[in-house]
Amino acid sequence: MKKLLFVYIVLIGLFVLYVYQYQTSETTNNEWSEHELRGTIDETYVMVTFQTGIDYWKRPLKGFEDAAEALNISVAYRGATQYDVNEEITVLEQVIAKNPSGIAISTMDPEALNPVINKAVESGIPVVMFDADAPDSKAYAFLGTNNHYAGVTAAHKMAELLNESGEVGVVTHPNQLNHQERTQGFRETIETEYPDMTVVDVKDGRGDQMISKEVSEDLMRENPDMKGIFASEANGGVGVGKAVLDQQKKGDLHIISFDTDKGTLDMIDEGVISATLAQGTWEMGYWSLQFLFHLQHNLAGDLEGETDLPRYVDTGITVVTKDNVSEYYPVD
Amino acid sequence: MKKLLFVYIVLIGLFVLYVYQYQTSETTNNEWSEHELRGTIDETYVMVTFQTGIDYWKRPLKGFEDAAEALNISVAYRGATQYDVNEEITVLEQVIAKNPSGIAISTMDPEALNPVINKAVESGIPVVMFDADAPDSKAYAFLGTNNHYAGVTAAHKMAELLNESGEVGVVTHPNQLNHQERTQGFRETIETEYPDMTVVDVKDGRGDQMISKEVSEDLMRENPDMKGIFASEANGGVGVGKAVLDQQKKGDLHIISFDTDKGTLDMIDEGVISATLAQGTWEMGYWSLQFLFHLQHNLAGDLEGETDLPRYVDTGITVVTKDNVSEYYPVD
Repeated sequence: MKKLLFVYIVLIGLFVLYVYQYQTSETTNNEWSEHELRGTIDETYVMVTFQTGIDYWKRPLKGFEDAAEALNISVAYRGATQYDVNEEITVLEQVIAKNPSGIAISTMDPEALNPVINKAVESGIPVVMFDADAPDSKAYAFLGTNNHYAGVTAAHKMAELLNESGEVGVVTHPNQLNHQERTQGFRETIETEYPDMTVVDVKDGRGDQMISKEVSEDLMRENPDMKGIFASEANGGVGVGKAVLDQQKKGDLHIISFDTDKGTLDMIDEGVISATLAQGTWEMGYWSLQFLFHLQHNLAGDLEGETDLPRYVDTGITVVTKDNVSEYYPVD
Repeated sequence: MKKLLFVYIVLIGLFVLYVYQYQTSETTNNEWSEHELRGTIDETYVMVTFQTGIDYWKRPLKGFEDAAEALNISVAYRGATQYDVNEEITVLEQVIAKNPSGIAISTMDPEALNPVINKAVESGIPVVMFDADAPDSKAYAFLGTNNHYAGVTAAHKMAELLNESGEVGVVTHPNQLNHQERTQGFRETIETEYPDMTVVDVKDGRGDQMISKEVSEDLMRENPDMKGIFASEANGGVGVGKAVLDQQKKGDLHIISFDTDKGTLDMIDEGVISATLAQGTWEMGYWSLQFLFHLQHNLAGDLEGETDLPRYVDTGITVVTKDNVSEYYPVD
């Protein structure tokens, strides 16, 4: 009987402890709920792109998903399957109709998309642009590459490869602003910082492998002493690489390319392309979702009536060479 | 006896429930501990500045503190009390000796501070720069104003105030890079986008109220038709304001100034200064601490051996006028 009473007392003690602990944990939760960076699984944030199936979007989407895990929220991926702004507009309209907690958008045609972007913002949905901006839209922020600085980085890498001496050329896509900026950054840096180097010519490869191959063959014929070519986008880089292989100039002519699609990485691995510039695509996705979460939860600033977010995030550039190329193959 | 047995069974049930709940909560905690954005109170992150007592640092520090609350970590504020880089070096050395979880630094002399910044990074302490960069240091990121764009914003506001027509002048501090960038952005925008406006002169106010007052009096005498002055820093703006009051030109000449110290805000309230540009100082502090936390917890990217943080965050500019000036007075 005494034994039973003892067990009784121990169990009452544990019960009191249980109630106490339960209440304490409640208090702690309440204290943090207002400010902590933790949402709920039924908040859904959407990433919208175009050509949704291409490899390029895998890393921004991984960043978006990693941020969702850190913030305990849900994400979805939508977009135009083709390079078609009308399809992207239709998809974005459908996304807006579901009233998501936020939308991160990349588009090839900001002018056409601006009205739909503004419609989302006006209906109270947080929107940020990533990778390619829509500067005249009402989106709250843009997260992407500083293309001028990317060109500067390419110039310094080229100078390093050529011991700061020799003729170089450029194959680019001169109708697009981002490519103009890359070319200008490259050219200005070579001209102002490397007196023994010259940019002999800038050719239009039109973002196409075959055309880039042809114009780089012209470039090599017209400038037999040329020691390097900067290709401002990935198809151009592979095209130049094929020309260098055909002309048996591998090792004599250094190529610096852009982005990290499989064709480019393979040519780096084989020593045809010396270096490529990797954009901070994971960062674009990760910090886009952080910004959207901060807007949705009114954590973006301390001023009433203001959307106090940074307006531009330069997500950075990394130089990829044979030494670190293995890290850039997608892990499926 | 039966009653006692019943109580006994209920209590055993509660005990089992308690153990079960305890284990569940352990599991839940473990599941989240790796990714969630929540640190511990014994992690201390330090903000280091110079002239630590001036109003300017209150808003970055508030942003730093707000992020600390959201992330459940601790912060401290240190720095040179004077405009003295040697004092700042000494303070930074002392901070490094305590091995903090991260340091956000602003300095007036990056060249002198670079070795100490690098020492912190080399000893494994995450470091970001805010407000003023140390571009040749090993700091992981810079968060601050895009000064060129700030000048562009000032030009558009001036054009709006003057109905896109008339002569304007500039009072600046031409020895400092940030002021050169502001002046250039202002000048280029007026020259290329407003054909009926002219920048008649740029004067050196040396960051001093009295000198700025004198040079703006010269400016007004030499250009009697001048309709506006852009002052690229706060002392200059107040100096120009005093000149305008002395010359009884209030209302005839529009002043656009920079930053939001009390003297500037008072002159906006009185209608002497038409507008001032507020930097995103809260954002500098808030996102600096977010970045340091991500570095400390290895959340900054998905590549091994890379510090995958955005390298530059443009914390933005807001135009402050009589309409919203009340929001900018510090709340103590």
